[in-house]
Amino acid sequence: MNYRIMIRVHAWILAIETVFMVPALLIAVWHRDMPSVRGFGWSMVIAAVSALAMAYLTRNAKRRFFAREGLVCTGMAWIVLSLVGALPFFISGRVPNYVDALFEIVSGFTTTGASVIADVEALGKGLLYWRSFSHWVGGMGVLVFFLAIIPASGKNDGYMLHILRAESPGPSVNKMVPRMRHTAAILYAMYCGLTVLDILLLLIIGRMPLFDSFCIAFGTAGTGGFAVLNAGMAAYSPAAQYVTTVFMLLFGVNFGVYYLLLMRHFKDVFHDEELRWYLLIVFASILFIGLNIYGKLPESMGPEATFRHSSFQVASIITTTGYATVDFDLWPGFSKALLLCLMFVGASAGSTGGGIKVVRVVLLVKSIRRNAHQIFHPHEVRVIRMNGQRVSEQTVGNVSHYLAAYVIIVIASFLILAADPGDFSLTTDFSAVMATFNNIGPGFDSVGASRNYFEFTNLSKLVMSLDMLLGRLEIFPILALFSSSTYRRA
Amino acid sequence: MNYRIMIRVHAWILAIETVFMVPALLIAVWHRDMPSVRGFGWSMVIAAVSALAMAYLTRNAKRRFFAREGLVCTGMAWIVLSLVGALPFFISGRVPNYVDALFEIVSGFTTTGASVIADVEALGKGLLYWRSFSHWVGGMGVLVFFLAIIPASGKNDGYMLHILRAESPGPSVNKMVPRMRHTAAILYAMYCGLTVLDILLLLIIGRMPLFDSFCIAFGTAGTGGFAVLNAGMAAYSPAAQYVTTVFMLLFGVNFGVYYLLLMRHFKDVFHDEELRWYLLIVFASILFIGLNIYGKLPESMGPEATFRHSSFQVASIITTTGYATVDFDLWPGFSKALLLCLMFVGASAGSTGGGIKVVRVVLLVKSIRRNAHQIFHPHEVRVIRMNGQRVSEQTVGNVSHYLAAYVIIVIASFLILAADPGDFSLTTDFSAVMATFNNIGPGFDSVGASRNYFEFTNLSKLVMSLDMLLGRLEIFPILALFSSSTYRRA
Repeated sequence: MNYRIMIRVHAWILAIETVFMVPALLIAVWHRDMPSVRGFGWSMVIAAVSALAMAYLTRNAKRRFFAREGLVCTGMAWIVLSLVGALPFFISGRVPNYVDALFEIVSGFTTTGASVIADVEALGKGLLYWRSFSHWVGGMGVLVFFLAIIPASGKNDGYMLHILRAESPGPSVNKMVPRMRHTAAILYAMYCGLTVLDILLLLIIGRMPLFDSFCIAFGTAGTGGFAVLNAGMAAYSPAAQYVTTVFMLLFGVNFGVYYLLLMRHFKDVFHDEELRWYLLIVFASILFIGLNIYGKLPESMGPEATFRHSSFQVASIITTTGYATVDFDLWPGFSKALLLCLMFVGASAGSTGGGIKVVRVVLLVKSIRRNAHQIFHPHEVRVIRMNGQRVSEQTVGNVSHYLAAYVIIVIASFLILAADPGDFSLTTDFSAVMATFNNIGPGFDSVGASRNYFEFTNLSKLVMSLDMLLGRLEIFPILALFSSSTYRRA
Repeated sequence: MNYRIMIRVHAWILAIETVFMVPALLIAVWHRDMPSVRGFGWSMVIAAVSALAMAYLTRNAKRRFFAREGLVCTGMAWIVLSLVGALPFFISGRVPNYVDALFEIVSGFTTTGASVIADVEALGKGLLYWRSFSHWVGGMGVLVFFLAIIPASGKNDGYMLHILRAESPGPSVNKMVPRMRHTAAILYAMYCGLTVLDILLLLIIGRMPLFDSFCIAFGTAGTGGFAVLNAGMAAYSPAAQYVTTVFMLLFGVNFGVYYLLLMRHFKDVFHDEELRWYLLIVFASILFIGLNIYGKLPESMGPEATFRHSSFQVASIITTTGYATVDFDLWPGFSKALLLCLMFVGASAGSTGGGIKVVRVVLLVKSIRRNAHQIFHPHEVRVIRMNGQRVSEQTVGNVSHYLAAYVIIVIASFLILAADPGDFSLTTDFSAVMATFNNIGPGFDSVGASRNYFEFTNLSKLVMSLDMLLGRLEIFPILALFSSSTYRRA
């Protein structure tokens, strides 16, 4: 393995993180919030000095970079990013336990939005901004950003593809344009454009304060879900809630679809199977939950409020954002069960959302159908098609293996959480694992929309932090870090 | 499809079921329990007349029988068996709702042991015997029994293998001896031998009444779990509980292992990977649960009682029997979570137990490891081995597809149960699905060891009955009944 180039990539990551902290520092200075100024100041010094030292030590690194390096680099980069990103919370003294700070920022970067902080308003604007901004960075991926800005020649295309594959959600990444660097730049440009549009609509239609609309838009774009007010999304106007619903759904769509729209390939968009299933699941769920909660809520609501809360919550859960306009833990069992299933499905591949991804679920159903067919017709060979194209057996197999790894990680985490001396209910433990592993945020019962993750032990919090990283990077880049074969010579 | 031979097989099934009802009828007569006598009498008349009519109509059927027929025949036979087996409960008037009667006997034949009856003692001895005996028949499989007794020549070996494959738990069945009929006979001989031994030990060491020891042994052998007293297994002596623990574990072992022992292939037994994992999981779980519940139970217990209840419950859940000596729903969260995971794992392939099966879990873990390895070494070809032998890629793929189908059925059933107007907790709904699909019996919360399934609607009960059949026959024989391609001409 080429350790030198990997250290060099990490120097870049830390340099970018230092730059990212600048706006948060300025906000803290503007509000004369001295603990936060100290927190960001020291964190930036630590990050910048480390970056310089690492860059100097590896100034002669060779540019050899294979799939293995890409995978390990991605896993490691997200851990380093989180360890340093947690420092402002800890140094400012606002989050006195470093494990809590780490949980909070991992939850930010992985766009989970699970929090250990009950009184978020007490964090101060600087830390609130940093928390929400981490969603925005994590949504599209920090290494993708790095690819979009580093000076590079066509020679580097190979390793860029490896990194983009490891960091992007979904079973496979296709180059949109021949040069990877341009693909990364196009992705970020579309991402910025949609975010800016969201901010403007929240300001104008939603009548949201400026600071809040930036933070809420970051959380929506990254499908993260950190709020800036203790009351969460319930504090804003219905218009702001509708805008957020629409944008959550938009950020749950494969960005490749937007590129096709920009290129005016409308027919391909119309025939995109994942998009069709995504929309079908969303609309069917809104309908079923609307019918289920209508008239049954704690406070009885009219048709408009029923539709608004039902569509907001479905969009929030399937895209794994995790914002809440109501405490859906009080909804009837069927709605809660349906939301739990949507957690499992997740958003589209190539979006900023988490979960198993719609395309994987569609492929799984197709492969089960194929398997059942083959029991009766053992001599017939059937291929699985997606968007009219043949899906390789390798991809089909990988999806099944992904599901198997997913199930085993859920079970292992569930057991560790169940051993937590806090002795929460099985619903709490199971939904906490599902909500962190799928990067959603709130679960049910003791981790419901009106509660938080503070009461767990440090061990449980570290396990859930790992689950968030496993979920965001889709298991294998993190598993690679723990596999002995990674460090063996080829 | 050769419908005539299939109808003929069903005539045989009904004839066998009529004979099986004879002891129950005699017990009812002995106790002068007229409603039960009426129930069994009419049921036997209906079954016998149908059997004769069907046999007469298909007297010229050709003996062509392929995999497709075997699969459909198995699925259909279990449904017919259950529809008729429910009649005594219904006709006697002891279970006035036919859906309840169906749920109860499906639960019996599939060796689930989930009940809708709170006061089982009021059923009367005849129905209690029939309920427990259905476990014994369902454990080894009614078609396997049929294979063992029908007059047949070597020509029929092909279709016997298809039926045995469809009815036996686990990813693959091997012929023990060249002739299938002999294999089936050997299986039943070992099954009878172990059951008789269990009855004798319960009588002598456990000091259990004669009737109870027969019924409890039937429930243990089939890994079913229907009790004959309202107090369940808690009513018997510790010695009887220990005997039952040991026999539950013995019936959770692949019967192929006992054949190897009879043939004195001790080395093969020692190196059997599934057996090793099964024992490892059992002993580790007993240890962890023992440590977890020691001193924490409602009534504080000494080391002996802790070990007894911990080992009894682990054996009962992993073998999917479902007997209970204590209300384990009151145990701490970790123990409950671990038991929930054991439900998922299940017993060994080729045993009478349910669940995913240990060998499938081992294969899944191996294929995930292989998959992770191949990400780093894409050009290396690795085969998966089990007991030193190469496992075909087909088998590995089938296991992944099985898991995927399993997960999707769990989710669909969970959603339907969650829509039940009873509005049970998520833990109730989820554990009810797991407990019926894995053929265990009791779950948690409203379906815990001290509760029953009575309060669900008829729809939920039918869904759970279907889940029990899907679980017992490992999904595909039942799915085949609902697939249009089954009835299409080849």
